Amino acid sequence: MSTFSLHTLGCGSAKPSLRHNPSSTVLNIREKLFMIDCGEGSQLAMQRQRLKFSRLNHIFLTHLHGDHCLGLPGLISTLALTEKGGTLTIHTFKPGIKMFRKIFDYFCHERPYDIVFNEIAPEEALVYEDNAITIRTVPLKHRIDDVGFIFEEKPKLRHIRRDMVDFHKVPISQMKAIKDGEPFIKDDGTVIANEILTRPADPSVKYAHISDTIYMPELAEKIGAVDLLFHESTYLSEHEKDAFNRGHSTAAQAAMLARDCGAKKLLLGHYSSRYKDESLFLKEAQEIFPDSILNHEGLRIDLD
Amino acid sequence: MSTFSLHTLGCGSAKPSLRHNPSSTVLNIREKLFMIDCGEGSQLAMQRQRLKFSRLNHIFLTHLHGDHCLGLPGLISTLALTEKGGTLTIHTFKPGIKMFRKIFDYFCHERPYDIVFNEIAPEEALVYEDNAITIRTVPLKHRIDDVGFIFEEKPKLRHIRRDMVDFHKVPISQMKAIKDGEPFIKDDGTVIANEILTRPADPSVKYAHISDTIYMPELAEKIGAVDLLFHESTYLSEHEKDAFNRGHSTAAQAAMLARDCGAKKLLLGHYSSRYKDESLFLKEAQEIFPDSILNHEGLRIDLD
Repeated sequence: MSTFSLHTLGCGSAKPSLRHNPSSTVLNIREKLFMIDCGEGSQLAMQRQRLKFSRLNHIFLTHLHGDHCLGLPGLISTLALTEKGGTLTIHTFKPGIKMFRKIFDYFCHERPYDIVFNEIAPEEALVYEDNAITIRTVPLKHRIDDVGFIFEEKPKLRHIRRDMVDFHKVPISQMKAIKDGEPFIKDDGTVIANEILTRPADPSVKYAHISDTIYMPELAEKIGAVDLLFHESTYLSEHEKDAFNRGHSTAAQAAMLARDCGAKKLLLGHYSSRYKDESLFLKEAQEIFPDSILNHEGLRIDLD
Repeated sequence: MSTFSLHTLGCGSAKPSLRHNPSSTVLNIREKLFMIDCGEGSQLAMQRQRLKFSRLNHIFLTHLHGDHCLGLPGLISTLALTEKGGTLTIHTFKPGIKMFRKIFDYFCHERPYDIVFNEIAPEEALVYEDNAITIRTVPLKHRIDDVGFIFEEKPKLRHIRRDMVDFHKVPISQMKAIKDGEPFIKDDGTVIANEILTRPADPSVKYAHISDTIYMPELAEKIGAVDLLFHESTYLSEHEKDAFNRGHSTAAQAAMLARDCGAKKLLLGHYSSRYKDESLFLKEAQEIFPDSILNHEGLRIDLD
């Protein structure tokens, strides 16, 4: 079973269509759901993809354009009618906190769970941390304040080699240290190297979600070698000027960033509704970065 | 071609599901679109049913529960990206005006059309009138202020009998009066009764939209003999107490009202998501009022 999967709820842009919902992505990390953006219809898409409301505890908004957050009031209302308890934390900019607090107080004031707002800023910062992961923001350049989010698993524990641990009679009390990479020192002073007792830990997953932005080559260094880079590709290169003027990127620019940061895979999306043939986005990106794929509603990618 | 049709965008209740969208209905009256309620997803349903955004000039909100109005911000934003011009009037209670003005100013401030708010109150009143129709409110009893809307065509013009008008040599200048039912008086004083010159006008259509409310027998007189009554039927009779406590009606109660007001047809809807088999609503209603039908997304009824 996957412990780090991405689920696309919506990958269209500002104008919703019958082909694409507005933006929303859910990451399922060890059965905790993290939502990035919440366009209209996200709550239905969650149901359609069998993502459990009760496991959703954090929503991150990249920016406060309607196609990235107007599904929030409906989702908040619906959560109040489900088995959802505990706390839901919404990570957003200050004006979003002010606006959504008003909306929730009016339309969704009866809630069997708490809503907490975590104010984020358009800067590099650690915005979430638990035992397993960190989430950092990187500022983007759009028409309004906007951030990308970088999800990164912490280093994982090494795998115990049961046969070798038994052979060297490692006591249970030492096991945590051994998983952490420590050597085992026997009573007679003999040192058993950790590599003898363990196999390497699983690699940690790293995912970067770069929403609405112009092309920012300097992001490559900030993002680094991710397993998956989602990078908006609202336009094709033939409309590169429009892309820049509207604060967006082209598929080719997304591919250049994926190449330059050393991503394993690039996920395209946030397609402008002006294009009817999305294979053109893929073609354009793959010429620069072959491991590109097209986003679509219902897409699931297992990253571990 | 129909000149008065009803289109259901959503007929579920508070908890949206994969089977039903939250509430929204569009009336197409001589190519002007009138929307009643605007639950999340209404803008997509309009596209799906090929109802043109550019023809939508009036939105009426029955009450300010989220499942009846949280699709409004997304619709307003999307309209700004379409060919929509002119004015959009939103008819709602005072707190709705305050709330939506804030939301629109924040999320949808760039608009190539004007938004006008028309404040309505939970009372009987004329809230809209043009050459062809009137729209009146009737107060309902729900958990918060709530109104139903009665759409009524004005008396139509009588049909000219071309042969008789030619025979009696009625001049063009008299034609409007003849269509209005006046007799024709010849130069020699002879009176030609209107019935000789015309056939009766088409009947005027009357539609009542009774959203969330407990059963109110006194509505029968206020509504009168409508061609179609939509009456919420959130519950079945077996849960009549729940219905009352939550400010709702049962299918049987909707049917009693249809019978008592002399409706030609009853449209059920606003089904609670607790029921999986909606044929039970129909069965319950038809035992009291045989001309009952079930609502569903995509339903179109021509009323003329």
